[in-house]
Amino acid sequence: MNAPLPAHLQPLLDPRPVPPAMIDALKARFGDRCSTALAVREQHGRDESPFDVPPPDVVVYCDSTDEVAAVVKLADAHAVPVIPYGAGSSLEGHLLAVQGGVSIDLSRMNRILSIQPEDLTVTVQAGVTRMQLNNEIRHTGLFFPIDPGADASLGGMSATRASGTNAVRYGTMRENVLALTVVTASGEVIHTGTRARKSSAGYDLTRLMVGSEGTLGVMTEITLKLFPQPEAVMAAVCSFPTIADAVQTTIEVIQMGVPIARCELLDGNAVKAVNRHDKLSLRESPMLLMEFHGTPAGVKEQIETVEQIAGEHQGLAFEWAETPEERTRLWTARHHAYLSGLQLKPGCRAVTTDTCVPISRLAECLLDTVAEVDESGLPYFIVGHVGDGNFHVAYLIDPNIPAERETAERLNHQLVQRALQLDGTCTGEHGIGLHKMEFLVSEAGAGAVDMMRTVKRALDPKNIMNPGKIFAG
Amino acid sequence: MNAPLPAHLQPLLDPRPVPPAMIDALKARFGDRCSTALAVREQHGRDESPFDVPPPDVVVYCDSTDEVAAVVKLADAHAVPVIPYGAGSSLEGHLLAVQGGVSIDLSRMNRILSIQPEDLTVTVQAGVTRMQLNNEIRHTGLFFPIDPGADASLGGMSATRASGTNAVRYGTMRENVLALTVVTASGEVIHTGTRARKSSAGYDLTRLMVGSEGTLGVMTEITLKLFPQPEAVMAAVCSFPTIADAVQTTIEVIQMGVPIARCELLDGNAVKAVNRHDKLSLRESPMLLMEFHGTPAGVKEQIETVEQIAGEHQGLAFEWAETPEERTRLWTARHHAYLSGLQLKPGCRAVTTDTCVPISRLAECLLDTVAEVDESGLPYFIVGHVGDGNFHVAYLIDPNIPAERETAERLNHQLVQRALQLDGTCTGEHGIGLHKMEFLVSEAGAGAVDMMRTVKRALDPKNIMNPGKIFAG
Repeated sequence: MNAPLPAHLQPLLDPRPVPPAMIDALKARFGDRCSTALAVREQHGRDESPFDVPPPDVVVYCDSTDEVAAVVKLADAHAVPVIPYGAGSSLEGHLLAVQGGVSIDLSRMNRILSIQPEDLTVTVQAGVTRMQLNNEIRHTGLFFPIDPGADASLGGMSATRASGTNAVRYGTMRENVLALTVVTASGEVIHTGTRARKSSAGYDLTRLMVGSEGTLGVMTEITLKLFPQPEAVMAAVCSFPTIADAVQTTIEVIQMGVPIARCELLDGNAVKAVNRHDKLSLRESPMLLMEFHGTPAGVKEQIETVEQIAGEHQGLAFEWAETPEERTRLWTARHHAYLSGLQLKPGCRAVTTDTCVPISRLAECLLDTVAEVDESGLPYFIVGHVGDGNFHVAYLIDPNIPAERETAERLNHQLVQRALQLDGTCTGEHGIGLHKMEFLVSEAGAGAVDMMRTVKRALDPKNIMNPGKIFAG
Repeated sequence: MNAPLPAHLQPLLDPRPVPPAMIDALKARFGDRCSTALAVREQHGRDESPFDVPPPDVVVYCDSTDEVAAVVKLADAHAVPVIPYGAGSSLEGHLLAVQGGVSIDLSRMNRILSIQPEDLTVTVQAGVTRMQLNNEIRHTGLFFPIDPGADASLGGMSATRASGTNAVRYGTMRENVLALTVVTASGEVIHTGTRARKSSAGYDLTRLMVGSEGTLGVMTEITLKLFPQPEAVMAAVCSFPTIADAVQTTIEVIQMGVPIARCELLDGNAVKAVNRHDKLSLRESPMLLMEFHGTPAGVKEQIETVEQIAGEHQGLAFEWAETPEERTRLWTARHHAYLSGLQLKPGCRAVTTDTCVPISRLAECLLDTVAEVDESGLPYFIVGHVGDGNFHVAYLIDPNIPAERETAERLNHQLVQRALQLDGTCTGEHGIGLHKMEFLVSEAGAGAVDMMRTVKRALDPKNIMNPGKIFAG
């Protein structure tokens, strides 16, 4: 059960209904692929965020960039909102139709358009998911590393500037999107970037779009960097007596410049949750879950360095996932952490944080946060892409007890303020959406947010592209 | 001797003179640091591009962000242009005052503001040059890898989205700028980004500014990523009988995923030039100049792989620069290639290209280009960051012979069209400036350029920020 939008966000609810003439036009063009059924609309009007708002007025399943452009042209003519929909896995209310409008479902745009293995690039439609992509390119010996927990669509991942467990080595969507096809707010189709690895040709529209959360245009085709599957891969878990020891190990590994591919923290609560959910028997204390990529000799060197650092911080012996199957089991469990964690408190919802700080500040940020949440008495678990300085606290609340939500929101607020004081960001990978608008102002300052808003108003003068997200109005 | 602006660019010359009242106000505030002397203005009204236009009306040497903001506020009030000036080393006419105005000289803003070695970050004023930065941080064991040929300022490098010889491994300014302080067109001071390694907090204003060539704001402070100095560094040259062999070697090295740090091509002409200029005795045939970074064992592995690939393509035995001094000598010679090359034809100017293509297309792009220039009879040399698919042909022309310039421009045009057909870009690292405006339209399409122009007009409604660059009007 979800909660209504909190009072300070209520003014965002400002419906601009899709007029019957436009619905008729959509039905004439899209037939069965245009739906006003309540169940379909409700499915498209929510994501993993905890709020309920009225659903979009209509859902259209598009098959091509031209179809998306046709929908947006109609929306422009009628000045009604459009909200791109991929896999529905965003966390910050990106999909909530606070002003009504059209949900453009891109899940049928799930074709890999071209692979250029010799250039380490691929071009996909926006509805392709990260797992689908990796399945379909496996035969090339290449892979795409960015892996948010959910099997998100690559359009959604681009829109939120997503990352995941491999970002410490391979970067985020910011570094890995080379080029885009975008439907603009007026329904024009433009192309940004090229397949060249670098360019100084004018403004970096690709990176302006990446992270724009659907508010500047609809990304319909995406060209991505790929990487050779490493010759050797080794994954290990290492348990520590305290979170402080695990974090200090991480800090030193990064500062040494070890090219570790994944460096994930699970606190004791998170380990307990994945043990239950995935039938594992990991030691239920703070744990680093690590992966090393390279040549056999290179991986061996990395491991020796990290084992030595971990040993200096009371790390127990590394336990190895020797086979690909064991590795997959371990990382699948890690990717289940969110769902597993929810089962720690039946019927709960999670309020999830996403701060990211410079690595030297990670211990301070994380340990003060743990002390605060311990004191609050709320159940919680922590997972973190700690190699990046990014971690998530999930506060587990009973949605029927307002006091629990208030406590979680207060803790989140305190954590964000702390991260900002430590030169960090309120969101490492989830985006602003509905939930973090006021944090964005604290972080970037009114002047920078004004500049964002000026860009938004110039590129979307009727405010039809996913309105009410990132900033109000 | 430079040439006048070509006919098709003449309409850009549209002076908006700085009124006497504003000059008086600048002199009152800046005293000796405000100059209207012709020699000073002329020095600030040119760069490495081959065109002469009238100089800016006044030059102001700023010491702080607040001073830059004060100049821009005055320029805004009087609606006159401002052009940020760093080291004067840009290649595409970025500094040419086609509409007159104020040159803001940032070279006195040359302080390193803070170093955080434990986070691998540094914050500098925009006038710090890349060599100064590396000298001042050497004691930390860290370095900043981006190295255009000139000792450019980090502000200028950010403005042109520069790269250089290390980009194949460490990325370009796009990947290495974390945060900025920017003076906007209205003279406000804003901050973009944070020191966190990743963020999803709103539009990526940092990357909108990087590569904007002074047209959206003046970058005054820059936070950069740093890298640990590698434990082992090995540099080698390998000569090949043909450019085709050298390029095919490069392609295979990149496709294998070898983390080579530098992979530079010099054609026989370029080798001859650096031999003369830097008193070296390199074999005067096509050559790859390579550098390997890593642990001793890792470097050894990389070298074995690359030696094997080179051997399959008629590469001669690697010659090693064993000591740091020898390496410095070799890379200094490489960085002198442009100046050395000019001496191949006394009194000449160079018309320089900057295309970048996907690596699989590099051989086709480069070899067809060589055939064309050989047929033209113009002297030339080629250097290339071929690991990125980026190379520069320098056509050596007598500025007093219009036919030579026309030939060079025709060859450049043909090369750009070829690169675009091969999914590449007209500029890998130099920027658009005055020279490549029509190439930008060919590359990005009218729709994307319109989007850039819309952003420009929204953020700089009086068109005072380096007007007439990237796009006309």
